[in-house]
Amino acid sequence: MSRLSQKHLLGIKNINREDIELIFETAASFKEVINRPIKKVPSLRDITIANVFFENSTRTKLSFELAEKRLSADVVNFSSSNSSVKKGETLLDTVNNILAMKVDMVVMRHSSPGAPHFLAKHIDANIVNAGDGTHEHPTQALLDTFSIYQRHGSLEGLKVAIIGDILHSRVALSNIFALKKLGAEVMVCGPNTLLPKYISSLDIKVELDVRKALQWCDVANVLRIQLERQHIKYFPSLREYSLYYGINKKLLDSLDKQITIMHPGPINRGVELNSDVADSDHAIILEQVENGVAVRMAVLYLLAGVQ
Amino acid sequence: MSRLSQKHLLGIKNINREDIELIFETAASFKEVINRPIKKVPSLRDITIANVFFENSTRTKLSFELAEKRLSADVVNFSSSNSSVKKGETLLDTVNNILAMKVDMVVMRHSSPGAPHFLAKHIDANIVNAGDGTHEHPTQALLDTFSIYQRHGSLEGLKVAIIGDILHSRVALSNIFALKKLGAEVMVCGPNTLLPKYISSLDIKVELDVRKALQWCDVANVLRIQLERQHIKYFPSLREYSLYYGINKKLLDSLDKQITIMHPGPINRGVELNSDVADSDHAIILEQVENGVAVRMAVLYLLAGVQ
Amino acid sequence: MSRLSQKHLLGIKNINREDIELIFETAASFKEVINRPIKKVPSLRDITIANVFFENSTRTKLSFELAEKRLSADVVNFSSSNSSVKKGETLLDTVNNILAMKVDMVVMRHSSPGAPHFLAKHIDANIVNAGDGTHEHPTQALLDTFSIYQRHGSLEGLKVAIIGDILHSRVALSNIFALKKLGAEVMVCGPNTLLPKYISSLDIKVELDVRKALQWCDVANVLRIQLERQHIKYFPSLREYSLYYGINKKLLDSLDKQITIMHPGPINRGVELNSDVADSDHAIILEQVENGVAVRMAVLYLLAGVQ
Repeated sequence: MSRLSQKHLLGIKNINREDIELIFETAASFKEVINRPIKKVPSLRDITIANVFFENSTRTKLSFELAEKRLSADVVNFSSSNSSVKKGETLLDTVNNILAMKVDMVVMRHSSPGAPHFLAKHIDANIVNAGDGTHEHPTQALLDTFSIYQRHGSLEGLKVAIIGDILHSRVALSNIFALKKLGAEVMVCGPNTLLPKYISSLDIKVELDVRKALQWCDVANVLRIQLERQHIKYFPSLREYSLYYGINKKLLDSLDKQITIMHPGPINRGVELNSDVADSDHAIILEQVENGVAVRMAVLYLLAGVQ
Repeated sequence: MSRLSQKHLLGIKNINREDIELIFETAASFKEVINRPIKKVPSLRDITIANVFFENSTRTKLSFELAEKRLSADVVNFSSSNSSVKKGETLLDTVNNILAMKVDMVVMRHSSPGAPHFLAKHIDANIVNAGDGTHEHPTQALLDTFSIYQRHGSLEGLKVAIIGDILHSRVALSNIFALKKLGAEVMVCGPNTLLPKYISSLDIKVELDVRKALQWCDVANVLRIQLERQHIKYFPSLREYSLYYGINKKLLDSLDKQITIMHPGPINRGVELNSDVADSDHAIILEQVENGVAVRMAVLYLLAGVQ
Repeated sequence: MSRLSQKHLLGIKNINREDIELIFETAASFKEVINRPIKKVPSLRDITIANVFFENSTRTKLSFELAEKRLSADVVNFSSSNSSVKKGETLLDTVNNILAMKVDMVVMRHSSPGAPHFLAKHIDANIVNAGDGTHEHPTQALLDTFSIYQRHGSLEGLKVAIIGDILHSRVALSNIFALKKLGAEVMVCGPNTLLPKYISSLDIKVELDVRKALQWCDVANVLRIQLERQHIKYFPSLREYSLYYGINKKLLDSLDKQITIMHPGPINRGVELNSDVADSDHAIILEQVENGVAVRMAVLYLLAGVQ
């Protein structure tokens, strides 16, 4: 039985290419499983997994929960909204309590960058980072690159542009790491106010003009405008953002090639993506969702039992 | 294996009598199952059902969830309160995302009339409407009529009065359709302000005097006063409503016959029903709840796999 | 198959010592089960258990849920926060509705003392009290005394001090009953304002000076300061409470013996317990959590089927 070379999936930064390729290979098998009439395998039948979400995340949680159930794991859900966290308990105490109930793996979403890394130093269970603030969201990056891999056969030399609100995205950084490890060329594109300062240290292309970015790339991963995270104004109005950075069919048709369009969801239709693109053959958005379950099955399966 | 003649259960309006009778027959078998020590059957073991509730509904959701688990289906729950719906995602995108995770059936509660009908046109899974606003709530109508059927042997020629807040009820319209299809005579009774305008188009009796309605009927389905839905005043006070439309033992004893009392729950005791009626032999309120699980098992079982 | 001599676990006050000892014996077996790679037993495979929580309680609920799943029971969760309770339904109607769906056992948390006792008089299912206000919390007392039993071999003649906020604790009273039934000597210690008036009727020691209490006892069960329950001030400040009643390593080192430290969680580190105590060998806090699942498995197992 294959295993990852590390005990936790905390981020893409410190995972090696062999592990990513093992995850892809395993995810491809599990994708076949979930497209069968019988969608379950007994692989993790004796494993209890706790989904510990300190921030709401319906989609990611649902995807993990389905992955866990299809692996036949026992699942318990812990969300901070109505919990002892409010009563002033420390993160370590909360998780140690859950582990004392004999939980084997912890899938954790937390608003603080580094929270799962902190835990990994102090506890014994396998930890999967389901997003730590705007830092890493490794399973999203794995499902994104797996989706590109399935569409294009290989990422080696492929040109991928990540477009939009890089600053508030929990998706961008992990994607950049994964794409580079797999040999892709990476560009980020967005208004200056939505590009984080760390970008210049990452050795990737930066482009302000979305038309030039699209002309350059083979794959465009279009991020959502996270209105709920914007306490101050980063651009004059949604209409203006859409005008300068929104991607529509007319824009795609003006290119001299066919590119693949991705989006981590949920889409703001008419803002960062028009429906004539989101629902077109260019887009692999729903494949990303489907691949999410398969990739998470692969990650959980390959981590289980690693000491 | 029997199947319904249609792929979805969106409402009672467009279901035929044969399908209703098939549901009743199947529900009667499942009622035996859930009264056995071993309450489960493996019928839907390879089916994943998503309960997608855009409005809170503890009872209906619990009843569906038990029905699903007793059919051995895999169950995932999605509620809009902490979800991407708040982030401005469209209904179609939300449901397509859930389906991309390889869900086979969707049980949906939504505040907008027609929401499940809209979905049914665009997606591939089987859809069960668990209430769309005050429009249809087909499984409630099926469990109500199934409860009458089990009590009275047949609905043909039976006189059924639906009493109370017809205007805000998600139960009334589906019940009227089901009762008429099964050959019952239907009357609605309530204060003029709580009768919707569409009533006159339905070819049913309308009565303002609850005493006359009770004198006329064999079965009285007493609806709850949905205080939480009344933004404006429809009657002077609860006390006055109770005085004119509340049903108590004294009123029932004054009739020259024994009638069956139903209520979709939760009861406002002392408002629309007095405890001396709700807890009497007249009432089949808890049988309705029990039948709810059996009827929902039947619906899910008979829809599964219909293309 | 062993059974308890009573149908419900409503409190420790009316349970006999033989039943407590049977629960301990069974919990010890189940503790072995949950430490095996295969943590499940098929014991309650045909039993449906409803967790009915009218108050939030993440830890207790998670512990019960894991216990139920490891016994292979079917589990449904009902919480009052988004439910018909808000719509004015009575407790009895709510629970009768849940039972009409053919639920076998009810685990209930309620804010009103006596709520589960009231239910037990009116309904047929087995009821486990998961906390009724500040009255009883029997499974907590059982897991606390079981933890002492496993550490010390016996409770006969053992000196146990319960320290801190006795007044707002849902743990104290059940613990006092359990400790006395098992032959322990009991003392409560805290500021006068946090000692309830009923204490004087219980034939236990009362001590205001925490140093004297620690000097006296073999085991100290340190309760948390329930800030969220304190609408008025019971002590000048957290800092002052910590100064006079907080337990730290220096204080423990000043004693001429080694004592066992317990805490029901979640800990306010630096208030009632310092980290140098909570994380020391004195403390059996995480064993209490682990034992919680085993004790709850034992209670559910031994109640199932008792008429």
